[in-house]
Amino acid sequence: MNKKEFRIAVAGYGHVGKDTVKTIIENNQTIEKRTGIKLKIKTVFSRNIDKVKNDKYLDSIEIKTKDLNDILNDKEIDIIIEVLGGIDTAKTLIMEAKKGVVTANKALLANCFSEIVANRKTDIAFEASVAGAVPIIKALKESLVSDKIESVYGILNGTCNFILTNMTKNNLNFNVVLKDAQAKGYAEANPTFDIDGIDTAHKLCILSSIAFSNIIDMNKIFIRGIRNIELSDIVFAKEFNYTIKLIAEASIDKDNNVFIFVIPTMLKEDNMLSKVDYAFNAITVVGDRSGDNVFYGAGAGGRPTSSAIVSDAITIARNSIITDKLRIPILGFVEKNNDIKVKDFKEKNEIFYIRFSSSKNNFETFNKSFVENKIIIEESKEKNNNFMFILKEANINKITKAIENIEKIENIFIARIKS
Amino acid sequence: MNKKEFRIAVAGYGHVGKDTVKTIIENNQTIEKRTGIKLKIKTVFSRNIDKVKNDKYLDSIEIKTKDLNDILNDKEIDIIIEVLGGIDTAKTLIMEAKKGVVTANKALLANCFSEIVANRKTDIAFEASVAGAVPIIKALKESLVSDKIESVYGILNGTCNFILTNMTKNNLNFNVVLKDAQAKGYAEANPTFDIDGIDTAHKLCILSSIAFSNIIDMNKIFIRGIRNIELSDIVFAKEFNYTIKLIAEASIDKDNNVFIFVIPTMLKEDNMLSKVDYAFNAITVVGDRSGDNVFYGAGAGGRPTSSAIVSDAITIARNSIITDKLRIPILGFVEKNNDIKVKDFKEKNEIFYIRFSSSKNNFETFNKSFVENKIIIEESKEKNNNFMFILKEANINKITKAIENIEKIENIFIARIKS
Repeated sequence: MNKKEFRIAVAGYGHVGKDTVKTIIENNQTIEKRTGIKLKIKTVFSRNIDKVKNDKYLDSIEIKTKDLNDILNDKEIDIIIEVLGGIDTAKTLIMEAKKGVVTANKALLANCFSEIVANRKTDIAFEASVAGAVPIIKALKESLVSDKIESVYGILNGTCNFILTNMTKNNLNFNVVLKDAQAKGYAEANPTFDIDGIDTAHKLCILSSIAFSNIIDMNKIFIRGIRNIELSDIVFAKEFNYTIKLIAEASIDKDNNVFIFVIPTMLKEDNMLSKVDYAFNAITVVGDRSGDNVFYGAGAGGRPTSSAIVSDAITIARNSIITDKLRIPILGFVEKNNDIKVKDFKEKNEIFYIRFSSSKNNFETFNKSFVENKIIIEESKEKNNNFMFILKEANINKITKAIENIEKIENIFIARIKS
Repeated sequence: MNKKEFRIAVAGYGHVGKDTVKTIIENNQTIEKRTGIKLKIKTVFSRNIDKVKNDKYLDSIEIKTKDLNDILNDKEIDIIIEVLGGIDTAKTLIMEAKKGVVTANKALLANCFSEIVANRKTDIAFEASVAGAVPIIKALKESLVSDKIESVYGILNGTCNFILTNMTKNNLNFNVVLKDAQAKGYAEANPTFDIDGIDTAHKLCILSSIAFSNIIDMNKIFIRGIRNIELSDIVFAKEFNYTIKLIAEASIDKDNNVFIFVIPTMLKEDNMLSKVDYAFNAITVVGDRSGDNVFYGAGAGGRPTSSAIVSDAITIARNSIITDKLRIPILGFVEKNNDIKVKDFKEKNEIFYIRFSSSKNNFETFNKSFVENKIIIEESKEKNNNFMFILKEANINKITKAIENIEKIENIFIARIKS
């Protein structure tokens, strides 16, 4: 037997950690027969290791510990899998580890990419950080490597997509659906992170950094979530054969101007992403050679996430053997594209849909203020104190200015219409 | 500069060859900045090199030749890209090359896999052979490597999908649409290869060999194309909210029984593949961990195909540096799964739709013969001498037996209904 065994430490034993251990143990033979690589879990770390010690999947594991040093100081460990969640301990582990690390920690990556990449001498893989099992990171880093990537856009948050799908299919209000999602475990008790688009933005930060060969600053991403959506918006969209999705998008033009944003978006029926329902995720990558490539799959959940994590361990095992200069680069580039200019999405002219709820205003108030600000109205409609407009090309700054002096607007919802 | 340059020979200068040369030349900087690898085309081979010699993309290329030995005997060449088309010369090149080869030649691979793999000491990559730019081969070989693959199914032939989409959207007959496709260059003058499902089967052979870790014999694939489809079949399908697609499918059960088949298939509206229109391709991979993963993109065309070819060259460059035992295996497995048993699809119980055209028979003839053969009819309909049935679970052998003695059937169309 000339096969190589790689010793693994799994840090974190929540549902993703547990499923990772299960996948490695249950599918070890399959993995070895396919890749020639044997993964052996030596150590499992958990803050609550005492509570899970008797878990049958941990029987065969040599070291069960709540001391992170048992991983950091163990020279026998080849690859560390970080599935702790949260930032602090995870960051310590990733910064101090002197071996390849697999992580699913999108918040950490999005906020500390520069620091992490600059400090690492070994590999870090993070397929599981975006869209669960969907192999979008590998596709961007390795498969679409001969394309100039023109844009990446997708549905990256299962909670939001579950809510929007449910509203659309069952004609329900946002609050009703959110409560249902919380009851079913699709949404957190405090859903801010998901419904305000922050989680989506973390993932977009990762995707766009790879796509445009530069680390994208989280603060430069325009973020607007779905908190203000009402059933009337969805009904209006349907009338024009649009489906509303929370879309994360990053695009680059020929002059290297880059726009990166998260915003509710009306998609035409023939856009594949308009068909992505409930908790599923999907990403379209537009390449100058390959055209539109869509990747669709389970965006979350322990089992799918473990699939991405374990294949990352295999990739790290192979990559570690490749000469330094030819290794697959952590962020998919060996040389940064310093030419990119990240612009403010608020300045980008797009076709927008906007709806105001107000019992104190009338159609003329809105109409007049758009006209005064030279914003052309393409379609408009009023129903039950909801004033709905589709505007000809305009930007968010201009629209904001047009409405800033209108009093008594209770709820504004804005969506981009994707051409 | 410590970067590595890889010298390339491109064998074949049809539209894929030309676009491959263009992609390497035009995107060379992007590729180098992303991967650290510089691809340099040293040689272009074409049987008609004299005719294309003055092509501006060939200006910078050192050797332009119609002698294959100029590639085979050149020790400076690191990677050969085979885009000749046809079998004979391509096979010679692939068998005799002592360096990594990239090929898009699905017919050659499907028919000679065992021979090719057994004889090669160096790498062979073939992302472009299935679904153009869609990175399904890498996904199966590397990304979904920790999954037990349960099934792979997809739309793998753009011509058939173009025809079916056009019939469905515009209520047109098969022959009208085929002629239109031929006029537009979407279908060959002799369309047999596409519409009878052979091209689809070649691609399925490649996908299933990887998915189930064994070389699948082309002769064991059940193949039924779309030649006999009529508008009445599509209209019937629509009534039940089904869309008809030519689906290639390979599945494995827990006892390692494998079924591999190409057959017109009625898909439910919520199946992502039912939304794949015109010349696009898409593949669903079902993994035991990741669940359903869908990959969608341009299935053909010079530019998209060149994207897959050039990234394969990068993968080969990296893979060549990895220790023999840990290299990414050519077919995605280092150890063959000898347990698989490829079964006859004709014996598989499925829900089938069947339509007979006959002016000499009546509904009772068909009805009686199904009942006599213990095949239960779920739905039935007669319109303009078309007798249409949905049958409860049955297999093709049983159905064939039931109808073999009925005379004067002019046209039989059979489709599987995918649950």
